[in-house]
Amino acid sequence: MNDREKIIEILLKDDNFTLISHMLPDGDSIGSLLALGAGLKRIGKKVQMFTPGPIPRKYTFLKGAELVDNQVFSSTSSKVVIVLDSSDEERLGLFKDQVMSFARIINIDHHVTNQSFGSLNLIDAEASATGEIVFGILKELGVELDQPIAEALYVAISTDTGSFKYDNTTSHTHLVIAELLKYDLSPGVLSQKIFDERPLSFFILLKEAISSLELYLKQTVAVMTISKDIRVGSGATTDDLDGIVNYTRNIEGIELGILFYVESDREVKVGFRSKLLDVSALAGKLNGGGHVRAAGCRLQGNYETVKEKVLREAFEMLKEL
Amino acid sequence: MNDREKIIEILLKDDNFTLISHMLPDGDSIGSLLALGAGLKRIGKKVQMFTPGPIPRKYTFLKGAELVDNQVFSSTSSKVVIVLDSSDEERLGLFKDQVMSFARIINIDHHVTNQSFGSLNLIDAEASATGEIVFGILKELGVELDQPIAEALYVAISTDTGSFKYDNTTSHTHLVIAELLKYDLSPGVLSQKIFDERPLSFFILLKEAISSLELYLKQTVAVMTISKDIRVGSGATTDDLDGIVNYTRNIEGIELGILFYVESDREVKVGFRSKLLDVSALAGKLNGGGHVRAAGCRLQGNYETVKEKVLREAFEMLKEL
Repeated sequence: MNDREKIIEILLKDDNFTLISHMLPDGDSIGSLLALGAGLKRIGKKVQMFTPGPIPRKYTFLKGAELVDNQVFSSTSSKVVIVLDSSDEERLGLFKDQVMSFARIINIDHHVTNQSFGSLNLIDAEASATGEIVFGILKELGVELDQPIAEALYVAISTDTGSFKYDNTTSHTHLVIAELLKYDLSPGVLSQKIFDERPLSFFILLKEAISSLELYLKQTVAVMTISKDIRVGSGATTDDLDGIVNYTRNIEGIELGILFYVESDREVKVGFRSKLLDVSALAGKLNGGGHVRAAGCRLQGNYETVKEKVLREAFEMLKEL
Repeated sequence: MNDREKIIEILLKDDNFTLISHMLPDGDSIGSLLALGAGLKRIGKKVQMFTPGPIPRKYTFLKGAELVDNQVFSSTSSKVVIVLDSSDEERLGLFKDQVMSFARIINIDHHVTNQSFGSLNLIDAEASATGEIVFGILKELGVELDQPIAEALYVAISTDTGSFKYDNTTSHTHLVIAELLKYDLSPGVLSQKIFDERPLSFFILLKEAISSLELYLKQTVAVMTISKDIRVGSGATTDDLDGIVNYTRNIEGIELGILFYVESDREVKVGFRSKLLDVSALAGKLNGGGHVRAAGCRLQGNYETVKEKVLREAFEMLKEL
């Protein structure tokens, strides 16, 4: 039996599970958590759900979100913990030690970088989202889906594919969504919540970011810079920075977009977005990481020093393109 | 035989077709046109393709776009014209009379408002896009798809569903896309071209628009104002204004978004976007029109006068909500 078969067997046999997804939860981690939790309950299992840290407000509409404990990893009689969407144990944040002390750790994820830290590991890097893997598991368990499960899986998959825009979206992804849309979902309402609607503070931050725009290498590199003071002044959260960095790439003709977020005189966070360039390699050279078209790093030093270093590496890589 | 069956029969029997889609072409009209044109050619038909007016630059990468004539509706030996994605004959613009003089007019569309102006009409308002209907036709004709046809259909359907975000997206839509993605398409590259990428001038205009933001009625109404001077100064085109008005609605808590575009001391263009409010009714009161969540009007008068009038009407309607 391979790990997948063993996991299915355990899910069918055992009747008490602890589920957790990663810190700074996103749509895929929350959606996968809620869908698997609700699915296991539908076949009579006892389930406790956790996230290390609060669920962002935009996902709290999902049914079951109110049952997720994000403060205390309370003792439980379950002997099996299922970790979702977490490439390594560090992503379990303040709950890490408690999770890793379980006798049986089932690790379900789609990140190619997953460290296989579980006692059983189901890693499918072909899946667009952990939600896509959870869909397959629920099907194999014989769980009949319902509206809340379908909605949670839709949110999981649409978040991680950017509403099916990213290249991790496959034919199979769309087949799964075709199934989910049979359960009375509104793509319009869900997409507005997940993608389009942002707080006013985000747009003020965006204005500041565009004002800071600099272009390099015949307008193929776009650089935006935001200081902590400017972010705090706009009322935006650090989460909002993620939305900003995407804009660096969206300018016509731009191959590489960079956002510098100046945390202090001694530390700068850097986000990369690209159209063709492998920015995970670029970030890797700077002790960061990420995906091929979206990556980042965190560097010690003041803004000028960090910027010079980052641009030097970036220009070097672009030359090789 | 119903109209659909008659159309299939004609497409199989005849061997010479004229294809046309509507003026101010969008992704669905162009994608449907190119896919049906290429599909008919694959089964040995002669095809001529037209659009009344040029294809926007962002769609010219599609294979076959260079074969579409948008200047002259040249005489042709075909006796059958196929009109795609056009709710009425007015949408054929300068080619209208020539198209309507054909003995046989096949009208294929997904708009519920279609006027059935053809001699044969295949109107499927359940289809998310005309591209979704064309997919079904090609399948029924036994046309084997290829990469360019799949790409054209992908562009058609993803454009009209806003990358599967709008509520016209169905389970069937995703099944069709699942088929198309078997033909070596890159959702990432296509989506970037269709949705995300905008000229630099657009972002500068966006910055100006956000700077002008005013909020009313407990932050449920967002108003942005752009003068012609500011638009021209940013280098943006009038097309770019369309992208800006969407931002008025995307602010959290906003029910109604309004963009004032001051053309001169005597004329102001007004765009409306909403989440629930019927802005086509609002625009209607001001001699404009449009869709339920996206509408507009053009008013004579200076900015202050027009703004006061528009806000008065808008606040009135919001009170009734």
